[in-house]
Amino acid sequence: MKRVKILVLFAFFIFLFSFSLYAQQSLKPKNIILMIGDGMGLAQISAGKTYKGNLNLEKFKVVGLLTTNSCDEYITDSAAGATAMSTGYKTKNVAIGIDCDGERRETVLEYANKIGKATGIVVVCAITHATPAAFVAHVPDRNMQIKIAEQIAKEANADLYLGGGWGWFLPKSKGGKREDGQDLIDTMRRRGYYFISKPEEFYNFNFDKAGKVIGLFAENHPPYAPNRKPTLSEMTKKAIEFLSRDKDGFFLMVEGSQIDWAGHANDSEQILKEMADFDEAIGVALEFAQKDGNTLVIVTADHETGGYAIVGGSVEEKKVEGKFVTKNHTGIMVPVFAFGPGAEAFAGFGDNTLIGKKIFEYLKK
Amino acid sequence: MKRVKILVLFAFFIFLFSFSLYAQQSLKPKNIILMIGDGMGLAQISAGKTYKGNLNLEKFKVVGLLTTNSCDEYITDSAAGATAMSTGYKTKNVAIGIDCDGERRETVLEYANKIGKATGIVVVCAITHATPAAFVAHVPDRNMQIKIAEQIAKEANADLYLGGGWGWFLPKSKGGKREDGQDLIDTMRRRGYYFISKPEEFYNFNFDKAGKVIGLFAENHPPYAPNRKPTLSEMTKKAIEFLSRDKDGFFLMVEGSQIDWAGHANDSEQILKEMADFDEAIGVALEFAQKDGNTLVIVTADHETGGYAIVGGSVEEKKVEGKFVTKNHTGIMVPVFAFGPGAEAFAGFGDNTLIGKKIFEYLKK
Repeated sequence: MKRVKILVLFAFFIFLFSFSLYAQQSLKPKNIILMIGDGMGLAQISAGKTYKGNLNLEKFKVVGLLTTNSCDEYITDSAAGATAMSTGYKTKNVAIGIDCDGERRETVLEYANKIGKATGIVVVCAITHATPAAFVAHVPDRNMQIKIAEQIAKEANADLYLGGGWGWFLPKSKGGKREDGQDLIDTMRRRGYYFISKPEEFYNFNFDKAGKVIGLFAENHPPYAPNRKPTLSEMTKKAIEFLSRDKDGFFLMVEGSQIDWAGHANDSEQILKEMADFDEAIGVALEFAQKDGNTLVIVTADHETGGYAIVGGSVEEKKVEGKFVTKNHTGIMVPVFAFGPGAEAFAGFGDNTLIGKKIFEYLKK
Repeated sequence: MKRVKILVLFAFFIFLFSFSLYAQQSLKPKNIILMIGDGMGLAQISAGKTYKGNLNLEKFKVVGLLTTNSCDEYITDSAAGATAMSTGYKTKNVAIGIDCDGERRETVLEYANKIGKATGIVVVCAITHATPAAFVAHVPDRNMQIKIAEQIAKEANADLYLGGGWGWFLPKSKGGKREDGQDLIDTMRRRGYYFISKPEEFYNFNFDKAGKVIGLFAENHPPYAPNRKPTLSEMTKKAIEFLSRDKDGFFLMVEGSQIDWAGHANDSEQILKEMADFDEAIGVALEFAQKDGNTLVIVTADHETGGYAIVGGSVEEKKVEGKFVTKNHTGIMVPVFAFGPGAEAFAGFGDNTLIGKKIFEYLKK
């Protein structure tokens, strides 16, 4: 009987051990996709739901709420918001990749790179704009886009950039914005990047054969949805295919950049289109994560824009009547949604540095 | 060896069985406290957090988002919103306790009563007002408060009512609003209710000795916070003490009624005070639930009011600068927070009938 007891105990411990392994495993995602809806408050999400009927976002079960105040302002801008998420540190408005004291802070993308993961950025604005910049650059002012482009070209190591803004990388002589004469696209080519700038190149490009890619499809910002080619979801799909070849996993930041701009413009109809566009990209990421089983997808916003309010509408007709109180950002908390291993950490209340802190924690495990 | 294998299997099944029992148990709360912040959108919560520093609400880990459209309008009113939560059925705006086709629907409070649980309502408006009425009355129009009072007095069976509105129960001859000459307080006394109407009576009343209590501390609505006596949290505390004597458990609905009114009045400062007041009551409920271990607390809203936006503020000074787009309700989704056994059901997206449906499900288990 003693042997029996030992065996029973043994079986029980095997079970506990494998369960704890499983639990640990479930907290360490191999791949992380961070999706930022710029200016995407709860009203924007609510309106997007009415417009689209059902959102891919609704498949997320873990929901949290984040405060977004920056070091120096109650109402954050996109630079401070993105820096909180990219580094885990608060900073002053307009600052990129540095903390409240101006100290340079490593970003989750840089760290992911360092530990051998593939990394990428997919946006529908210039990649030198505040949100993407906060993942690969370190400057005191988001408006230093000439400098940000230089840091991206010479120092950053992301494997993939897709978005707009080739003008920031080329000298005036080649149709760009640079007065310093530098051709940073050439610099990047010499560092092993393939450069593409036309939608056809994107659709026909053999990403499988490229080591690193920078695809910029507008001189500065791409146009509003649905007039963008390639679309955010097309780029997100390609990016995931490209980055997921890395056996060590990947980190990808995707931004629905222009929800914010529709908010600044107090354009309710355009908010609906940008929300639908961003939600398509969320669907792409979620589909991959569901199949893969080892990918954490986080969807959140940096702040709300416009004080957008839904004052009428129709579920049947998918119509929304929107009104705004401001052309600027507001201080309402932003929702965060998470799916996949480690998602639970984003449930409940937090502040926006939680995003950066948790991604670092998962990368360092 | 065969015996050993059987024993190992046996131990494993015992484990599975006890685990499934535990899982089941965790889904069946003995007590349910539903707390409705009338007009409490995410902006109101965000502002309340800045004003109070930390909210008790932040202790909730399960967060969901609910659409609130009624049968006939994109933007719900409090009657249709409360009916969705009290019955699990959508209805038309202004309807109370009936569905879209006008059919009477049982409320969770009535069902809890029927199966032997203690039941109560605590509000800071007249108890004949839309939200409380939807749990104990069935009328096509919320404005039929004369009729609602009659249904409460003659048909409803809640063990405890605390709030305002004694005027709706008394004839004009006794200082009330009724033109039909009925003294419904007398009717209720004959049905076993103790009636109290003064704060001192509330503070000194021996709830332990009473079977049923109706405490109405204003002729119609109590004043704005902080000028209310007793406060919402004082009433919530007493209600929990009173109802938790029942060995079969209890259902309690608590409403932060006047967040909505401050929204309608576009009074940002008053929103802060009402949020703080409601959050104190949330703290009381949560403290009980944490100690009890068998109580589900759900906090949500019926809709947002005012299109409230935070356009400035200071975390350090606990100041909020608010603006509004409307004097009416808006269609933004409302957050829901849950704590305790069964809380998980409220994570992610849903519509407001989820509240009623899940409470019925838990009561029927």
